[in-house]
Amino acid sequence: MKSYRKEVLLNIATHQGFVNITPQIKDCLLESGVMEGFLLINSMHVTSSVFIDDEEEGLYRHYETWLEKLAPVLPAGDYSDEVIGEDIIDSHMKRHLMGREAMVAVTKGRLDLGHWEQIMYGEFDGGRPKRVLVKIIGE
Amino acid sequence: MKSYRKEVLLNIATHQGFVNITPQIKDCLLESGVMEGFLLINSMHVTSSVFIDDEEEGLYRHYETWLEKLAPVLPAGDYSDEVIGEDIIDSHMKRHLMGREAMVAVTKGRLDLGHWEQIMYGEFDGGRPKRVLVKIIGE
Amino acid sequence: MKSYRKEVLLNIATHQGFVNITPQIKDCLLESGVMEGFLLINSMHVTSSVFIDDEEEGLYRHYETWLEKLAPVLPAGDYSDEVIGEDIIDSHMKRHLMGREAMVAVTKGRLDLGHWEQIMYGEFDGGRPKRVLVKIIGE
Repeated sequence: MKSYRKEVLLNIATHQGFVNITPQIKDCLLESGVMEGFLLINSMHVTSSVFIDDEEEGLYRHYETWLEKLAPVLPAGDYSDEVIGEDIIDSHMKRHLMGREAMVAVTKGRLDLGHWEQIMYGEFDGGRPKRVLVKIIGE
Repeated sequence: MKSYRKEVLLNIATHQGFVNITPQIKDCLLESGVMEGFLLINSMHVTSSVFIDDEEEGLYRHYETWLEKLAPVLPAGDYSDEVIGEDIIDSHMKRHLMGREAMVAVTKGRLDLGHWEQIMYGEFDGGRPKRVLVKIIGE
Repeated sequence: MKSYRKEVLLNIATHQGFVNITPQIKDCLLESGVMEGFLLINSMHVTSSVFIDDEEEGLYRHYETWLEKLAPVLPAGDYSDEVIGEDIIDSHMKRHLMGREAMVAVTKGRLDLGHWEQIMYGEFDGGRPKRVLVKIIGE
């Protein structure tokens, strides 16, 4: 059994944003030498997502509006406790709507994805360095 | 280490619909001969879901209404870009609410599921052939 | 290849509630002896969630309000079928918003989590015993 681990580093300048990380993940898989197995990609932060979707700019502009509607920034008065303080409860919520992680099958040394499937990173509290974990187990 | 891969084919006639695919997945597991490991089931499309829930017709009628409320079909005027064009942005959104994939433990050669857990396929852009990937890794 | 399986038992007194189960999962990993691999944690019930988030009491009070807004208890008149009967359709919906399962990488015998990542259990139909499945595969 082979195991491989790498952290992919990201720094999205805007508060919210989406990036296609499939090329970096392909590099990881090649480096791992795994031919058959599973590949896990997860955000190591609680305010960003890894998920699978089409890479289509127009789609992500719609997502931004949609996520803001379902998980709006809370009014200041709703922050009754000092512990959280920061204005990022909506970032946590948006991340749950889009998910933390994706699991991809590895077949014949390749990411076993459908035609339109791309591995995307979704940031909901950007402007600082973030890490994505890539772990591959197989043979 | 054993590895197994199969595509399960589906064709839901309606635009939106839900199907219990547990029987097909059980057949895959039997065919694989894996006794201990993990089984991944994921939609290979970006407008449909694999998730785990009770098989209960009434439940899915409520889901249809609920998903339409949370991720409604966008008015035509909202499609400002020609790239997407098609009326399926809501299908992408619904799929994120229900999820792309499920991971199931394999124990003693069986799907290690709770009493009410069934593996479901959710279609949000039906009327054409779709594929679900089943990948099993273990011994 | 090593495989490990355990059920973690929970009993949340309230209808809805959140509990940090990271300590129990760490014990499982230690007991398994797995150094490199994957660890799956999933609810074995269709009305509760396993997900990863910060452990921060204030956050969960906001989640309760938020989930009730996105997936409210349905009015009695909406239950047209006797098959479901019980007032828990919203519990199913809430569980989908928060997810059924989490996959965690195991690296050097430890849960490979980011600084704020905790493994949380979310209950949406409490007041009775529930089970969480922990399955570990690796070496």
